[in-house]
Formats: sequence, structure tokens, C-alpha cells
Amino acid sequence: MEKTFKNLIKTNYPYLCGSKLLLAVSGGVDSVVLAHLCHEAKLDFSIAHCNFNLRGEESDADEKFVVDLADSLEVEVYTESFDTLNFAENHKISVQMAARELRYEWFSELSSSVQFDYTLTAHHANDNLETFLINLIRGTGPEGLTGIKAEKEEIVRPLLGFSRKQIEAYARKKHYKWREDSSNASDKYLRNKIRHHIVPVLEDLNPQLLDSFAKTQQHLQESLDLVEDYLSLLYPKLVKKDKYGYAIDIEFLKKVPNQKQILYQLLKSFGFSEWNDVYDLLNAQTGKLVLSDTHRLIKDRNKLLLTEQNGNSVSKEYSLGKEEELVMIPGMGTLHINEVKKIDKASNSCIFVPERKLEFPLKIRKWKKGDFFYPFGMKGKKKLSDFFKDEKFSLPEKEHAWILCSGEEIVWIINHRADDRFAVEKSDSKILKICIT
Amino acid sequence: MEKTFKNLIKTNYPYLCGSKLLLAVSGGVDSVVLAHLCHEAKLDFSIAHCNFNLRGEESDADEKFVVDLADSLEVEVYTESFDTLNFAENHKISVQMAARELRYEWFSELSSSVQFDYTLTAHHANDNLETFLINLIRGTGPEGLTGIKAEKEEIVRPLLGFSRKQIEAYARKKHYKWREDSSNASDKYLRNKIRHHIVPVLEDLNPQLLDSFAKTQQHLQESLDLVEDYLSLLYPKLVKKDKYGYAIDIEFLKKVPNQKQILYQLLKSFGFSEWNDVYDLLNAQTGKLVLSDTHRLIKDRNKLLLTEQNGNSVSKEYSLGKEEELVMIPGMGTLHINEVKKIDKASNSCIFVPERKLEFPLKIRKWKKGDFFYPFGMKGKKKLSDFFKDEKFSLPEKEHAWILCSGEEIVWIINHRADDRFAVEKSDSKILKICIT
Repeated sequence: MEKTFKNLIKTNYPYLCGSKLLLAVSGGVDSVVLAHLCHEAKLDFSIAHCNFNLRGEESDADEKFVVDLADSLEVEVYTESFDTLNFAENHKISVQMAARELRYEWFSELSSSVQFDYTLTAHHANDNLETFLINLIRGTGPEGLTGIKAEKEEIVRPLLGFSRKQIEAYARKKHYKWREDSSNASDKYLRNKIRHHIVPVLEDLNPQLLDSFAKTQQHLQESLDLVEDYLSLLYPKLVKKDKYGYAIDIEFLKKVPNQKQILYQLLKSFGFSEWNDVYDLLNAQTGKLVLSDTHRLIKDRNKLLLTEQNGNSVSKEYSLGKEEELVMIPGMGTLHINEVKKIDKASNSCIFVPERKLEFPLKIRKWKKGDFFYPFGMKGKKKLSDFFKDEKFSLPEKEHAWILCSGEEIVWIINHRADDRFAVEKSDSKILKICIT
Repeated sequence: MEKTFKNLIKTNYPYLCGSKLLLAVSGGVDSVVLAHLCHEAKLDFSIAHCNFNLRGEESDADEKFVVDLADSLEVEVYTESFDTLNFAENHKISVQMAARELRYEWFSELSSSVQFDYTLTAHHANDNLETFLINLIRGTGPEGLTGIKAEKEEIVRPLLGFSRKQIEAYARKKHYKWREDSSNASDKYLRNKIRHHIVPVLEDLNPQLLDSFAKTQQHLQESLDLVEDYLSLLYPKLVKKDKYGYAIDIEFLKKVPNQKQILYQLLKSFGFSEWNDVYDLLNAQTGKLVLSDTHRLIKDRNKLLLTEQNGNSVSKEYSLGKEEELVMIPGMGTLHINEVKKIDKASNSCIFVPERKLEFPLKIRKWKKGDFFYPFGMKGKKKLSDFFKDEKFSLPEKEHAWILCSGEEIVWIINHRADDRFAVEKSDSKILKICIT
């Protein structure tokens, strides 16, 4: 196996040679074999061990075992102790999930603080099959059927092509010592049930199961790669970067087959769960929206706008005194006041107001329901909601609209329209130019 | 269940109402329930029963049971007896495979002779899961994971959304009689082993297994639908219909990602098994080829040519006497001889030859190794193989090349080049025009 492993590193993971590696070692046979193989292959590695404190003295003995192993291999060892049960309870997740999260978070911290290039884990072909079956039993998207990736970001799993049997046989042949995790023998966890009661039956029906399963997964992955290629091809025509997020072109989408599935592929990483509501947006009225934990998808005429959910509810107010000359408005820019001799060309981003009409300090706030103003150049007043409608503001645009007020009266919908009441008259001598840049 | 079934027909399969249906009934609980449900829903159906003669008297009793059932439902019944064991042995396939082939072939015959619009089978959700697991165990392409189709060509499976348990419970509730197939209880067949030893464990781990499995399969199918869409988009740019089959544009293919996978998708229905050989063709020399049972893929410069393997080895010869004026050449056209007063414009498809130089009957045959001729307008002789090379003939073009001979001498590579030895001279009075149309 050490020869196969060396060849594997040479052909599939040549970048591991000369890199600084962090090896996740639990003390079980898989990670112990991986540590020995990396040592044989003369890779530059350190060992990391998580003590999840789930099995009392047994957990501490595991830790001691790994520290001793590191000593005998003459490599550095990092250990960390976790209160896994507590973490699981606080985050309302399973103990296995908690261990997983704690582990990968710590590896990631360690990698950046000690500057490791890659983290290696000892996942093997049986882990992969078990994960597939867990996902299958629970129900899953196609990604859940393609299994554990041998390379993903900075994590590499060089034993993924070997079976548990191969690894154990090799460990026995080499007389390696390792620790048996007593929980592996129990049927408490779904994974163990699958390992003990399903996989042996499957392997009995096809002794070459792991090989044919690897091919099945590879074929599936290759098909799904084409889905990615297809999406990459459609993407530039279908999605435009928008000021507040992304805009999906519904008209274009309706020209391609399987629109719903494409929408799913585009949005799957944004945490939506109510997919039928998402699909219904295609034919919904402007303004309808669907929420995920992190994002919003908003129907806006012939577009679907995807924006982040960023605490819009907390709307700060700013004020601008006579003496202060500028104020920063988040997501909008900087507001300046300057006295000018005469009016030059007005624009969306600059207005001219006679000082005598203003009540200082001016207030800058988000618009609210019931707001109205007197649009510049028009007779009569108008509700802001109607103004936004006429100007075809999308929901994010409305939410990002700031208004400048003098007392209770609106002076300017910043960057959009001035108020007629504050227009400069011939007799005015002291004129202020207010600009957003 | 009869209400759910009626609604299902109305919403998913409305075309079944008013159509003439053929119902496949084994006598087992699934097909018996389907027969009763179709009867309740007042569908216009007849029953077909296959007697595979695999279980002696039991098989005959099944047949009698189904005939009686048809009588009681007052519908027509068709039965057919098969020597399944013999068929399996002759075709070197498993008994289950033999039964399957015999059944669908007979259904197809019946459908066309008695003019049924659709054939209905009683496959249910458990059959689907079992098929998935069989494919998984043996190893499969992505299609093998998406399962049994509810509608495919003229076969409809309206019970695919119901579980075996639901169907059996309904049959018991309605006090229907059915036949138990004694082979279902044995573990002789892979399917039975999966049914008895794997599915119960999976259902124990997730009681909603069949529902979540249906969703998993649906998601997978939707992803694979996108692969089809992608291929449809690439197809017109990638594949051109060619005189002898299809030509795949290698230059275009090399511009898209995952070329091998695209090649696989394009060619998967043509029976190739040596996929690495297929992929190697992309960079192989012109003339290299890969065979499947039915097709050939040939590298030809910047193309891959896909042609059928049609008994090219049997090469017929034709002869054309002085009195006969035409002869049909398969895949080529009709050869005419006419006497003309003078030479008009020659072309690839017509030559002019002095009668005196010809030895009748003329012979028409495929070219063979060692053939040579004197290309018209050139000095000296040339091997046909060199001529084809210079003219950049593809392998199918070479194979479809016919030559016209006078005695042993080549007069014309039909449709391509005349022989200089048979050129008309000034003194010639009797001139023949030979054309292929």
C-alpha cells in the first residue's frame, strides 16, 4: 500500500510534496495508517487531534495515544479539547454534526495561524458509500449522491480510493497500533447501522461493490459537471450584477427549457427552502418576494432581484447642522453643503436651496409610509409611495432611498428629486448647494 | 385509493380516458389491484397475461385466474405461452431478462395488431427503489439512478407513486383475490434479496423512505434534464449530418469544457463500451476507429465520423450489358448508358467513353487493395489507395466508392474520376455517355 500511496501522491496530488500539511488524526486505524503513509512518503506534516470529550477517560487515552504517535514519528502535534455536548445543545444540532463543525473550524484556524497549506483527512471508500446511503435514506439533491470530494478547497483526502478492509489489513501487516472507538461498535448512530447492517449485504451481492460504486459516482459527477457548464454558458445572459445584488432576467429565462430547474441551480446556494414559492415568483406581481435565512428574492417587473437580508429594519437617522459641512450616508455616499453665488446646472445628485427656507439641523432618514412631497417642477403634492411606483423603483431601491428633511418637510429625495417648496426664488441671496457624491 | 387513482388519471394521465388500453396482468396483487382500479375508473381496457411456464402447474393456475378475473370484469383477455427457459438459454441472458424481453415484445405486437393506444403496467414505488438498488449494486450510469419512468413511449405506469404496502392494504380492504408467486418468497433472485434484506432496514431507518426517495430521484432527473438541454444547445454546432452518418466537429468540441463527458453523452446510445479508446480518438491519426456492436466511430482529420456497421464486407458485383441501359447501385444511384453524338460538358457524375474501347458486359464493383488506374488528364498510373488519400476520402467514403470496369481495367471511379485510357479520341465515332443519377 505504501507504494500505491506514493504513486498516488505523485500522479494525483503532486502539490502535496513540498507543502506544509496538517494531518487530522483521531487515533483510529484510518488516520493512523494515513500518518504512517505520509511519514513513509516523506511528506512535511504535523498532526492535529481533537478531543471531543465524549467518552471520558477513553477520549483522554486517545489524545495521549496520538501525542505518542507524533513523538514516535518525530512530527509536531496540536491538540484541542472541546465541550462537544454543550456545543451541540446550544446550536441545536446532533453530536456528530457538532463534532464535525468544531473539528473543521479548528483545522481552519490552525491552518491560517500556523500557515499550513493543506489539511489531510483519512476518509476512505467506505466512508463515502456510507455518506451516500445516509443521504439517500434521508433524501437529497444530486450533490448528496456524488459523495465526499477527494479535493475540496484546502482539504485533501488521499485515502478515498482505498476500502476500510484494505486499510485495516495494511495496519495489521505492518503491526501498527491504533485505538478502537467503542462507539463504532454500537448501532446508536445512523452511520454505524448502515455500516453494520446494509453495506455487508450489498457487498455480499457484489464483492466488487466499492469499485463499481466509485465508477457510478464518477459518472454522476461528470453529468453534474455538464450542468455546471450549461449554467456557466447561460449565466452572462441570464444574470446581471445589480446595485443591490443580482438581477435574473425573466424574459430570457422563459425562453429556455426547464426554467424551474435552472432557477433552482442558480439559487441553490442562497438557503431557500420554499421552492414552489420561488417558482411562483416568475408569474407573480411586482413586489412579491420570497425569503431565505440570508437572502430575499423579489419580483420586479421582468426581473427577479436577489439581495442580501441586511438589517434594513434598523434605520438610522442622521442630522446635518449649519456648521457641519458633510455627513456620510451608508450605501449612498457623502452629503455636502456649500454656499454658492448662483445656481448652475441642477442634477439628480445636486440641489440648490435658499438658506432662509431651511430649518437646521437638517435631518436625513429613510422614507416611511405616509411620506409625501411636492415634486420639483410640478404643482401639488405626491405620496412617496406613488412617486416610487411611477419611477418604477424596485423594492431594494425603495429601501435604499434616503430623504433630506427640513423640520417635517421633505427637501429632497436624495439622488432622485427635489421638492418644489424649497425652490430658489429670484429674491434669494444666500443659496446653498447640497450634493451627494 | 380508488379516489386518489381517479384524480391521478384526471391530472397526470388525462389521455388514458377514451383511449384503448392494454393492461399487463400477472395475477399478482399489484396488477390485480390495477385491473380493479381501471375498472372502477371506467377506463376502456383489455387484459394481457404472459404464461412464462416457469413454475409448472402454478403458472397454468395463474393463467386461469387471470382469465377468470377478466371474465368477472367483463373485459377481453389475451394470453400467450412462452418457453422462457429455452429463450434465455438461446439468447444467453438471465431468465428474468428473457421474461422481460418476451413480455414487452408480445405487448408491442398485440398493441399494433389489435390497435391499443397504451400499455399499462402495475410497477409501484417499491419496484422503483429495488431497481435503483440493483443498478447501484451492479454499477450504473446516471440514467440507472433515475429509475423507472411513469410514462415512456406507449407504456404508462400509473401506480408508480404507490407503495407495495398501500397496494396490498387496499387489496385486503376490498377483499380482492390474487395469486402469490412462490418465487417471490425465495432469495434466488437479486431483486428478492434486496426486497427482503435491504429495503426493510432502510425503511426502519426512515419510515418516509419512499417519499424522500421519490424526491431524490426527481431532483436527479431534473438535473439530468439540464444535461439534455445543454446537449441540445451544443448539438447543431457540434454535429453535422453526413452522407454516411454523423460528423462530430473536433475543433468545436475542444473549445468546450468536459469534452470527454460530452462525447459520452453524444454517443451513449450507440453501444460503445471502450470509452477510453473513444476519447483517445480525439487526438488519434486519421483512419483510427473504435467499434461498437452496431456502429463505428472513425477519426477523420478534424472530425469524428459515426456510421452504422452495415455488412460492408459482403460486396456485391453488378454487370451492365450492351443492351441493358441502367443498373441500380445501392447507396449510390442509378447508372445509365446512352449513345451520344458529341461530347458535352463532363462532370463527376458523367463520363464519355468510345464504345470500341469497352469490353461488355461492364462490371461494377467495390474497390479493392492493389487496384490502380490512370487518372484522367494525368500521365501514369496511380494506386486507388493513393488517389483516395490525396482526395482526402474518409473511411466511409472509401467504403462507398464503386468502380466501373471494362475487363480488368478501371474505366471510372464512379462519381469521382475517369480513367485516361478510356478517353474519347478525335477519330471515335460511337460515343457512350455513362452517368450516375
